[in-house]
Amino acid sequence: MKILVLNSGSSSIKFQLFDMNASQVLASGMVEQIGESTSQAKLTTHAKEDFSASKPIATHEEALETMNALFAQSGLLNSLSELDAIGHRVVHGGELFSTPTLIDQSVLEGIRGLSALAPLHNPAHVVGIETAIKQSKGVPQVAVFDTAFHRTLPQHAYMYALPYELYESLHVRRYGFHGTSHHFVSKSAAAHLNIPYENFNAISLHLGNGTSATAIQGGKSVDTSMGISPLEGLIMGTRSGDLDPAILFYLHREKGYTIAELDTLLNKQSGLKGICGNNDMREIGLMIDKGDEKATLAFEMFAYRIKKYVGAYSAVLGRVDALIFTGGIGENDSRLRTKVCEGLGNLGISIDTNTNDQRCKVITPIHTQNAPVATLVVPTNEELEIAQQTQAVLVK
Amino acid sequence: MKILVLNSGSSSIKFQLFDMNASQVLASGMVEQIGESTSQAKLTTHAKEDFSASKPIATHEEALETMNALFAQSGLLNSLSELDAIGHRVVHGGELFSTPTLIDQSVLEGIRGLSALAPLHNPAHVVGIETAIKQSKGVPQVAVFDTAFHRTLPQHAYMYALPYELYESLHVRRYGFHGTSHHFVSKSAAAHLNIPYENFNAISLHLGNGTSATAIQGGKSVDTSMGISPLEGLIMGTRSGDLDPAILFYLHREKGYTIAELDTLLNKQSGLKGICGNNDMREIGLMIDKGDEKATLAFEMFAYRIKKYVGAYSAVLGRVDALIFTGGIGENDSRLRTKVCEGLGNLGISIDTNTNDQRCKVITPIHTQNAPVATLVVPTNEELEIAQQTQAVLVK
Repeated sequence: MKILVLNSGSSSIKFQLFDMNASQVLASGMVEQIGESTSQAKLTTHAKEDFSASKPIATHEEALETMNALFAQSGLLNSLSELDAIGHRVVHGGELFSTPTLIDQSVLEGIRGLSALAPLHNPAHVVGIETAIKQSKGVPQVAVFDTAFHRTLPQHAYMYALPYELYESLHVRRYGFHGTSHHFVSKSAAAHLNIPYENFNAISLHLGNGTSATAIQGGKSVDTSMGISPLEGLIMGTRSGDLDPAILFYLHREKGYTIAELDTLLNKQSGLKGICGNNDMREIGLMIDKGDEKATLAFEMFAYRIKKYVGAYSAVLGRVDALIFTGGIGENDSRLRTKVCEGLGNLGISIDTNTNDQRCKVITPIHTQNAPVATLVVPTNEELEIAQQTQAVLVK
Repeated sequence: MKILVLNSGSSSIKFQLFDMNASQVLASGMVEQIGESTSQAKLTTHAKEDFSASKPIATHEEALETMNALFAQSGLLNSLSELDAIGHRVVHGGELFSTPTLIDQSVLEGIRGLSALAPLHNPAHVVGIETAIKQSKGVPQVAVFDTAFHRTLPQHAYMYALPYELYESLHVRRYGFHGTSHHFVSKSAAAHLNIPYENFNAISLHLGNGTSATAIQGGKSVDTSMGISPLEGLIMGTRSGDLDPAILFYLHREKGYTIAELDTLLNKQSGLKGICGNNDMREIGLMIDKGDEKATLAFEMFAYRIKKYVGAYSAVLGRVDALIFTGGIGENDSRLRTKVCEGLGNLGISIDTNTNDQRCKVITPIHTQNAPVATLVVPTNEELEIAQQTQAVLVK
């Protein structure tokens, strides 16, 4: 069974081809800079063979045609119609979608209808899905939503303290994102610890360029740090995460910032980059080693914010079976993990500096022997999770 | 030694007269609706005698003259020049003021200069102070700042993940408020528990119409929930507290909200009032008893947000000696205290429903016998704290 996973952005399409029977990635790649003269496409097979194309790619339609051509060159796939299914990553499922969903016209309209909540993502997903439907002729298409895992949040966790009417008329609430990753790593952690997932309580930290924390109780997401958008919560590469909203009023009053400028400020110029000028945690690590004070501050703020969420979610959960680190930073940055867990003994969290001191390519327990809370590094694999969820929809 | 404590707002002045030698409140009262035709002044003595005046009071100068006249009628004070000192509550001390400060011209200019950060408060304080100086002829005036107790926050706790330049040029950082109350109740709690204040770790919850949480380590504030303004953090009567700042961009995009409208929305129309239409927790309690679903939601959200801060600050502190409830809601609402502490056993917090089930006029421990963390209800007294700090400045 061959499943293609597609992640369509406004100017790029990422893809991964799975052989589900062999549980194997056959190839992965991306088409970049769609609509520009410098477009590129690249595909790498599981045998590490590379295929690429550099030519102007004007539309998503041309992008998928180019991907097809690379697949044909690789010998892995002659046509999209050979696929058993295509799984699409969709950022925002709003309150409409709480599970992976077989796409028909009404589902497509549902995704399009959520564009106001995710103007940068959902319109691009719709274009990607429509193009894939057209080119794959009858192959089932499944949408897997970043928000779906968080649809189990209780009302007291998803509501903001705003006029209730804004929830009713404009759907202002916490949705949460990175759900596919939080779901994948928490299931993996429960299996690793031999705890039935429906009894499993965990705090999951997805730390990549975007970052989020999720509280999982009995295998269900009960709170998460991202909100109506991916801006809220932890500090990210270029996003501020939590702040006093009055800062926006102050900057407008004092310096005349417009709402559009404030949007750009908080989403593109803040976070690690805002504090120290760099949004790559690996480079920040090198800057710290050279004694850079702002890099040290950025690192400390990043870890401190995470620590506060770990405490908050410990209070929410009451009993925590596991603390999970995942994402590029979570899997690779042992110094960050040490900093986050420092002084959390009262929450039952204590890590072993020797087992922690490594990059983790497989599930790795890093807690001390008698720690009440297991601390695990769990490599995430959102594409595999999307492929598996897509397969599960077909089997239903 | 007689000390008058003044809290000057834009259209009101609250006052309390202390006899410091007898540790006694001699009288308290307020002048309201200054500048309107319906102005009123009222003074109540410690012997429960009331004195009042209803007449148009146009200015802060006339307000203090009216207060003087009531003091004279009461026989407690013939003139402000009989006072040993006047202590002024000042909301925003910015980064300039970290201790109670004897007011001279440069201090007054300092307070005025912080008006951009506290446009609703500091200009009114300056008017009150200038008027008091004029009318009290040589009596020492001391400013006690709501922000001062939080000047010990470490940089990783007070910085926002915004461009560093905004901190340098516009002083964008977390300041925190309610410092006088958090300081007063935490000193009282440490004394009650016989723990030297400099070794005392506590989480202090000031829950009134405004609400805030503070983490205190070794007798110093190390984190607090309010930010550059009193908008951030816990849910309040009409303020939203924490939310995804992208909600503001969304409301602007979808419904054309201006920044001024968003400011009003978040500060005046949100919080408990926004969720259930009522910002008085006593009335919300009655609504819950009648089965009102939105009142129940407002109560649950209010408690849940507090619970998350208790968890976050447990993580920050590592060891917590005491959890402190204060303010009108914190002192009187036993149901709220129960809801906040529910399921916090893993943090060492456990309360006794019998001892909790009361309004607390004095320091009252409400934890179970073997709870690792003491939970205390501590009545706050900001005016007494201001009077004591004012006295301490004079003695220096």
